[in-house]
Amino acid sequence: MHLNAFLMSTGHHEASWRLPESNPVANTDVEHYRELARTAERGKFDSIFFADSPVLFSDVGRRPAGSLEPTVLLTAIAAATERIGLIATASTTYNDPYNLARRFASVDHVSAGRAGWNVVTTAGPDAAKNFNLADQPAHAERYDRAAEFLEVAFKLWDSWQDDATLADKESGVWGDNDKVQPIEHVGRHFQVRGPLNLPRSPQGYPLIVQAGSSEDGKGLAARYAEAVFTAQQTLEDAQAFYADLKSRAAALGRDPDGLKILPGIVPVIGSTESEAQALERELDELIKPEYARQQLARTLRVQPEDLPFDQPLPADLPDEDEIEGAKSRYTLIVTLARRENLTVRQLIGRLGGGRGHRTFTGTPDQVADAIQSWFEADAADGFNIMPPVLPSGLVTFTDQVVPILQARGLFRTEYTGTTLRDHYGLPRPAGRTASLQEATA
Amino acid sequence: MHLNAFLMSTGHHEASWRLPESNPVANTDVEHYRELARTAERGKFDSIFFADSPVLFSDVGRRPAGSLEPTVLLTAIAAATERIGLIATASTTYNDPYNLARRFASVDHVSAGRAGWNVVTTAGPDAAKNFNLADQPAHAERYDRAAEFLEVAFKLWDSWQDDATLADKESGVWGDNDKVQPIEHVGRHFQVRGPLNLPRSPQGYPLIVQAGSSEDGKGLAARYAEAVFTAQQTLEDAQAFYADLKSRAAALGRDPDGLKILPGIVPVIGSTESEAQALERELDELIKPEYARQQLARTLRVQPEDLPFDQPLPADLPDEDEIEGAKSRYTLIVTLARRENLTVRQLIGRLGGGRGHRTFTGTPDQVADAIQSWFEADAADGFNIMPPVLPSGLVTFTDQVVPILQARGLFRTEYTGTTLRDHYGLPRPAGRTASLQEATA
Ligand SMILES: Cc1cc2nc3c(=O)[nH]c(=O)nc-3n(C[C@H](O)[C@H](O)[C@H](O)COP(=O)(O)O)c2cc1C
Ligand SMILES: Cc1cc2nc3c(=O)[nH]c(=O)nc-3n(C[C@H](O)[C@H](O)[C@H](O)COP(=O)(O)O)c2cc1C
Repeated sequence: MHLNAFLMSTGHHEASWRLPESNPVANTDVEHYRELARTAERGKFDSIFFADSPVLFSDVGRRPAGSLEPTVLLTAIAAATERIGLIATASTTYNDPYNLARRFASVDHVSAGRAGWNVVTTAGPDAAKNFNLADQPAHAERYDRAAEFLEVAFKLWDSWQDDATLADKESGVWGDNDKVQPIEHVGRHFQVRGPLNLPRSPQGYPLIVQAGSSEDGKGLAARYAEAVFTAQQTLEDAQAFYADLKSRAAALGRDPDGLKILPGIVPVIGSTESEAQALERELDELIKPEYARQQLARTLRVQPEDLPFDQPLPADLPDEDEIEGAKSRYTLIVTLARRENLTVRQLIGRLGGGRGHRTFTGTPDQVADAIQSWFEADAADGFNIMPPVLPSGLVTFTDQVVPILQARGLFRTEYTGTTLRDHYGLPRPAGRTASLQEATA
Repeated sequence: MHLNAFLMSTGHHEASWRLPESNPVANTDVEHYRELARTAERGKFDSIFFADSPVLFSDVGRRPAGSLEPTVLLTAIAAATERIGLIATASTTYNDPYNLARRFASVDHVSAGRAGWNVVTTAGPDAAKNFNLADQPAHAERYDRAAEFLEVAFKLWDSWQDDATLADKESGVWGDNDKVQPIEHVGRHFQVRGPLNLPRSPQGYPLIVQAGSSEDGKGLAARYAEAVFTAQQTLEDAQAFYADLKSRAAALGRDPDGLKILPGIVPVIGSTESEAQALERELDELIKPEYARQQLARTLRVQPEDLPFDQPLPADLPDEDEIEGAKSRYTLIVTLARRENLTVRQLIGRLGGGRGHRTFTGTPDQVADAIQSWFEADAADGFNIMPPVLPSGLVTFTDQVVPILQARGLFRTEYTGTTLRDHYGLPRPAGRTASLQEATA
C-alpha cells in the first residue's frame, strides 16, 4: 500500500487555521513544512505533495491564501529529509515545457531522485487572466496541450543519454556529442529544438502524477500517469474508477500495475469515536457559511443568492458537458448533494473538510479499517492522506494509524529504496539508448 | 566594498575541469555548490550568483555542460547557509512575469530575505528555438519586453500590502481584501490581472541585478537595477562605464548610490608571482584551441575557418549595430583583440580565463591592490569574483585576499544585517501602502 501526505498550510479543513493550536501564517513558513515532511518520513510515507494554481483564489478573508511555489518549497524541504518523495503540482496550461522539464530535472538532481510532478491543466477562468488571456482555453484544448507538453518533456528528459558524460580529463573531451541530441519537436502546440541543458537526472523522469478525473483526464492518466490522485465519495464509485482506469491503461498496452490509484481521505481522528466527532463538530462550527457559499457558487457557476442555505441545490444546474473548468469535481459535488439530499448548509459542511474528498471520522482502528477495506476491495492502491488539521492530524496519523497498518502487514516498516520511483515500485525509464537498441533489435 | 562570488561548476577558466583536483561533474552536484556557498559566507561575501540560459550551448565535448536551474539550486543552498545573498539569473525573454515573480518571491520567503534576480534578455538565436520561435526577438524588442516584465513584477510584488494578513481567529477573517488588489496590467507585451498568489516577501522585492552593457542594457540598468554586473578590461573603460551609469541613474532622479556597479575579475592567485603565472600557464595549456575557436566564431558570427589561429581577427567584422545577440560582449572582444593586436590564438588564451572578463594574475597582495585601485578610482563599488578554479580559487581568495581587504578597512569583517539588501546597503521597497500615502499626502 502507498501513502502520500497531501500538505496544505494549517490543514485541509477550511476552518483549521482558526483552531487555537494552528499557526495561521503557516502557508509561508518553510519550517512548518519541513517539520511536516520529517513527520511523514518518520511514518515511512511514500511522498508528500503540494497542490498549486498560478492564481490567487479571490477571497483572502476566508482562509490562509497564497502559497510558496511548490518546486521551490519542495527543494527547501529536500535538504531537511532523506528518503521521502517530493511531488509538486505544475500546470501544463500556464508553463513552457522547456523551462518546466528543466526545473523538475533540477529538483530530481538536488533531491537525489525524489521528484514527482502532479500534471494538471488548471481549471477556472481566473488563472488565464494572469497569462495574457481573456479566458481559459477550452477543457479539451487544455488536455490536448497537456498530452503534447508531456511528450515534449519526455523527449527533453531523454535528450541526454545516461552515459553521455565522459569527463575524460586526459583527452580533454567532456561529453559525447552523439549522446546529447536535439529533439526537434514540431507539434500543434509546441516547437522545441532541445536538447535539455541538463544531464539526465537520477530518476530519468520525475514520477508522473495526474489528478483530473473527467473523461479527458482519465484518458491522459491512462496514457502517461504513474500515479493518480482522485476524489471518490463511495466505495462503489472508487471501485468503478479504479477498474475503469486500470482497463484503460491495459487497453493501451501498459501494465495496469504501473499506474497507482490513490483516492483522497480526510481522516478526523480521536482516541474515541465521540472525541473524533467532537473535533469534527468543533471544526465545522468554525466555518463561515457566507464565505463557503461564495466558493460553492463559483464552482457551480451560479450566484450565491441562488443557493439558499436551507434548501437543496437548484434543479436546473448545467450538465458536466457545459463546464469548462473542473468537470469531475463539479459532477462529484452535484452527485453528492443529490444522492444524500443535502441542503446547501449541509453540503458546505461536507465540503469544508476536504473540498469533495471523502472524510472519515473515527478512532485510529476505524481509520485503519476504512483504509484496509477500500484497499482490499480493489478501490485503491494507496491513499492520499489529507489531514484536516496540520501538524496535529499528520502526527496522529503517523503515530497511531501507520503502526496499525504496519502491524497488519499492509504498509512498509522501512524504506527499501532511495528514490520516489523505488517507493512506488515503479521502474526508472530506460531513456533513449535503450529504446534505440530496442528499435534496432 | 561589495563582493559577489560568481560560481560555475569547476571554475571560470574553460579548462579548469581538466585539472587533477577538479570534480568534472560538479555542474550537477549540489554538495559542491553548498560547500562553495559556505566558503563564500565564511569570507563574508555579500552574495553568490549563478548565470543561466534556457538552452544548451552546443558543444558538450568542450567543457562541463548543462546546469541546475538557479532558483532551485539557490533554494537548495539556502538551507545550508544563513546570511549570504543568493542571486539567480532568469530571462525576461523566455519566462512569464506571473510565474517568475511568484518564484522569486518564494525564494525570498524560504531564504528569509536573501533572494536576488539577475535580469537578462538572453542573447543568441538558439534559446528561441526551445520556445516556439524560429529566431530570437530583436535586441531592442527584448529590452522593451524586459522593462515591461519588470514593471509587471514590481506591481505583483506590491499587490499584497505588508499588513494584508490579519489572521484574526476570533472573527474568522484571515486577510484584508482591501490590501490585496489586482494589478490589472495591460501593456504592449503583457496583460496580467493579479494579484500575486503569495503574501509580500521579506525583502519586498528580490534585489534587482542587471548584466547587459549595450546602450539598451545600460538604459534598463539605470532605470531599474540595484546592482550591475559588467565585464571591463581596462581601468579607463571601467571608469567611463561607472560614470556613465551613475549619471544616467541620477538623470532619472535616482540616488546614484542605490545602483552598485560590480565589474568581474578572474583572480589567478599564487603565493608568489611565478606560482600564479605557472597556474595560469597550466590552465591555458589545457585549452583545446579548436573548441575555443568554434565558440569565438559563434560570438563573432563568422565561420571557424575565417579565423586562422596565427593571424589577427579579420578586418571586416560586422558593426555592433548589426549584432542582435550580446552586443556589449561582442564589442569588448573585438576591441580587446584590436587594441592589443592579438592573434586568434592569443585572443583565445585571454578569453579562456573569463570569457571577456578581466583576468588578474598575482599574489594575494597584488590581487588586493588591483581591487583596491579600481575601487578607489571610481571604477567599481565592488567586484564580481570569478575564480578560475573551484573550489580552490574561492578558498584561496577567501583565506588570503579577503583578510587583506579587511585589514585595509575596505571590506566588512562581519555581516551587520540579515537580508541581501542589508548587505548591499539598499533599502527595502516600501510597497503600495507607502506609495499610496505619498500620492495622497
Ligand atoms: C488530490 C487532488 C489534487 C489536485 N490538485 C490540483 C492542483 O493543485 N491544481 C490543479 O489545477 N488541479 C488539481 N487537481 C485537479 C483538479 O481537480 C482538476 O484540474 C480538475 O478536476 C479538472 O480536471 P477534470 O476536468 O479532468 O476533472 C487535483 C485533483 C485531486 C484529486
Ligand atoms: C557577469 C555577467 C553575467 C552575465 N550572466 C548572464 C546570464 O547568465 N545569462 C544571460 O543571458 N546573460 C548574462 N549576462 C549578460 C549578457 O552578457 C548579456 O545578455 C549580453 O551582454 C547582452 O546584453 P547587451 O546586448 O546589453 O550587452 C551576463 C553579463 C555579465 C557581465
